[in-house]
Amino acid sequence: MPDFIEPRILKGFRDFLPPAEIARRNLVEKIEASFRSYGFVPIDTPALEYSDILLGKGGGETEKQIYRFRDNGDRDVALRFDLTVPFARFLAEHRANITFPFKRYHIAKVWRGENTQRGRYREFTQCDFDTVGSDSAAVDFEILHMMQKNLPEICGGDVIIRFNHRGLFNRYLSRLGVLDSSADILRTVDKLAKIGRDETLCLLSEFVGNDKAAEIIGYVGLSGTFEETFGAMTSAAGSGPESEQLDLIWRYMNDAGIAGSFILDPSITRGLDYYTGVVFESFMTEMIDIGSICSGGHYDNLVGLYTKNKNNQENLSGVGASIGIDRLIAALEALGRLGTEQSYARTAIACMDKASGGKYQALADILRKVGIPCEVFLDEEKITKQFQRAEKKGLTWLIIPGSEDSTHGALTLRDLAKRESREGLKIEEIVSILKKQ
Amino acid sequence: MPDFIEPRILKGFRDFLPPAEIARRNLVEKIEASFRSYGFVPIDTPALEYSDILLGKGGGETEKQIYRFRDNGDRDVALRFDLTVPFARFLAEHRANITFPFKRYHIAKVWRGENTQRGRYREFTQCDFDTVGSDSAAVDFEILHMMQKNLPEICGGDVIIRFNHRGLFNRYLSRLGVLDSSADILRTVDKLAKIGRDETLCLLSEFVGNDKAAEIIGYVGLSGTFEETFGAMTSAAGSGPESEQLDLIWRYMNDAGIAGSFILDPSITRGLDYYTGVVFESFMTEMIDIGSICSGGHYDNLVGLYTKNKNNQENLSGVGASIGIDRLIAALEALGRLGTEQSYARTAIACMDKASGGKYQALADILRKVGIPCEVFLDEEKITKQFQRAEKKGLTWLIIPGSEDSTHGALTLRDLAKRESREGLKIEEIVSILKKQ
Repeated sequence: MPDFIEPRILKGFRDFLPPAEIARRNLVEKIEASFRSYGFVPIDTPALEYSDILLGKGGGETEKQIYRFRDNGDRDVALRFDLTVPFARFLAEHRANITFPFKRYHIAKVWRGENTQRGRYREFTQCDFDTVGSDSAAVDFEILHMMQKNLPEICGGDVIIRFNHRGLFNRYLSRLGVLDSSADILRTVDKLAKIGRDETLCLLSEFVGNDKAAEIIGYVGLSGTFEETFGAMTSAAGSGPESEQLDLIWRYMNDAGIAGSFILDPSITRGLDYYTGVVFESFMTEMIDIGSICSGGHYDNLVGLYTKNKNNQENLSGVGASIGIDRLIAALEALGRLGTEQSYARTAIACMDKASGGKYQALADILRKVGIPCEVFLDEEKITKQFQRAEKKGLTWLIIPGSEDSTHGALTLRDLAKRESREGLKIEEIVSILKKQ
Repeated sequence: MPDFIEPRILKGFRDFLPPAEIARRNLVEKIEASFRSYGFVPIDTPALEYSDILLGKGGGETEKQIYRFRDNGDRDVALRFDLTVPFARFLAEHRANITFPFKRYHIAKVWRGENTQRGRYREFTQCDFDTVGSDSAAVDFEILHMMQKNLPEICGGDVIIRFNHRGLFNRYLSRLGVLDSSADILRTVDKLAKIGRDETLCLLSEFVGNDKAAEIIGYVGLSGTFEETFGAMTSAAGSGPESEQLDLIWRYMNDAGIAGSFILDPSITRGLDYYTGVVFESFMTEMIDIGSICSGGHYDNLVGLYTKNKNNQENLSGVGASIGIDRLIAALEALGRLGTEQSYARTAIACMDKASGGKYQALADILRKVGIPCEVFLDEEKITKQFQRAEKKGLTWLIIPGSEDSTHGALTLRDLAKRESREGLKIEEIVSILKKQ
């Protein structure tokens, strides 16, 4: 039986002390409020699932990174590494009890045994939202609308959203006769912003030769107004349902008065095979370099692997997006915009007399009842020590009860920042002062 | 490469569909609001930790139930099975960065490979709150005060809180000369309500003989007013600092006007060795049988195992409590008090014309901006079908735009429960109708 165990945590895992956890929750609560206001609803799924469910078609990075083991019942189980695969399994299992189109959000921890040297964590929060079960352009637009309306408040600054249509890009590749290499091309173009034009050209040449690589670079480099870019893309790719859909989304954006926040950008492809329609990324204008803070796109068939009947009616198409919570927090911190509050309470009651603990709680309760969080100091100490304690805790106000009948007698209200006190106040007067703050 | 994988989840694990997840969140948000209003702050710790940290002194049920495995780096790791052990490790690791007394809450999933036949889950939410770093009776009282003020609203009914002092009970056992068997006695008495007087007596006799077993049953059966019970306990155990502390807490309860919700009950012992002072359990008066919904107690030294220096200054005493979220949900469900909302949005905009998707979002945004969540239907369908969809989704209102210039033209507001429509409304009129609800 050990007498001492060194307290330590696993590499790539984190404790969240109150200021970090409060900042994270404030951010998540803002994001959730935006989801809820659009009628998105929360779900939850187990952290642990059968490995075959999570690995699906398997292979690649996922298999190497997943936390997989045999449980006490010798089942082959694993911790979820994203929220998309569990959502697909969830939809296949519960589709009879769901009304479609289904708008869900899921904010939860996921686990990947990543190389922590790249500044990655092995446990992190994912924040996914999807609308599933409709192919309407209004589905794509709603998610883009929600991003445009809410991301600026969440970030505290301007946001620009770049979008594209993967189907149109594939139509273009098909015309060029290189559709077979589309997966490689998409993955390469997705790195354009990171590796630059020349290296992208060089990599593309390996797949499609120099001439076609140069043409592709020309296509993904198209820019200008929506009309200019759209016109050039359509003439390169030929028109079809994809361009009609893009055009309709552009109309929606104009009707809703939000078109100014969007740029049609043929270089936005998202790496994954999985997307088939509109794809998008969004950037804080003050922090373009950190990359996209919210991205996603349209997919054709989320539940295929978990559905026996492979006819089209069983498919579930939709639009999914993801907010990079950790990246957003890093950006807000760098901009000095992340809260540093140590508590939700800005006010405390000092402890002047150990015997009056009951009265102090009753006093605090008057504030709490009107929505003002209020702490009570629990140990009797010199008042100067209590001032220090209050300052150390980052409080704004300290209420100092008189020695007698503290709820109705004379109270002192100390403004801790100004180091000023107002004496002889009734609790009702303090309530009205604090409510004005 | 598989073509189909049967969607299924592990036994003892659960998916939460939106109505269940919304109900759970509403409950958790109420609980969190009460913590925050008292100055309790959130923390978070990793789901996965080194096994030696989590198992601590090890042994017993925990070791059998824990999800333990070797990760890809061959580390011996395990999923947390409670939030107390990680909190002890957290405190030992971060004590230099924490201001004491430290009031923290932690609501998170934990995992135990329990026997699911007893209706237990292998993944469930724990909700713990502790005040650490003070021995003041005001610490015990504050947690009891918070429970008395908030549990009734959380449960939607009356709550009675039973409390006791483990130190006083030990003093009594010491007088009786059976302190050596205290762990067995405590564990046995803890089962009294479940197994009844006779069986408890029989079990106690095995440890301390018939006569002393009968005396103990007499002691834990003491009842009456606080004064009567307290008097009888003190005369049986002898007075000391424990009775002074109980007496002071009783004074606090009276001063705060909440004494009527508390019963001094010497049979409340809590099973765990770990508690040394005040212990408490709380019951919904309409559902006594489900057992305690919020319990806890005072402990002397939380971080001992993770602290090298074993002198007393390094100890951290405090009070911890836990709300049984799953039990509470089961009780609220049985009482028909658990919400069944399918969404946070009660209102939707019908889709009359596919081309107007942009205008519909702009219309919905007017409601969202004043705090009314509003969904937009994304597919153009017959209006009767949209009524059905709205009813199926449990919405209260459907706004039906006119065909032209839908944000300023004539809108129809459909009351879905009454199946009545009001026509020719402006959006501002709808806002004022909905704000009154």
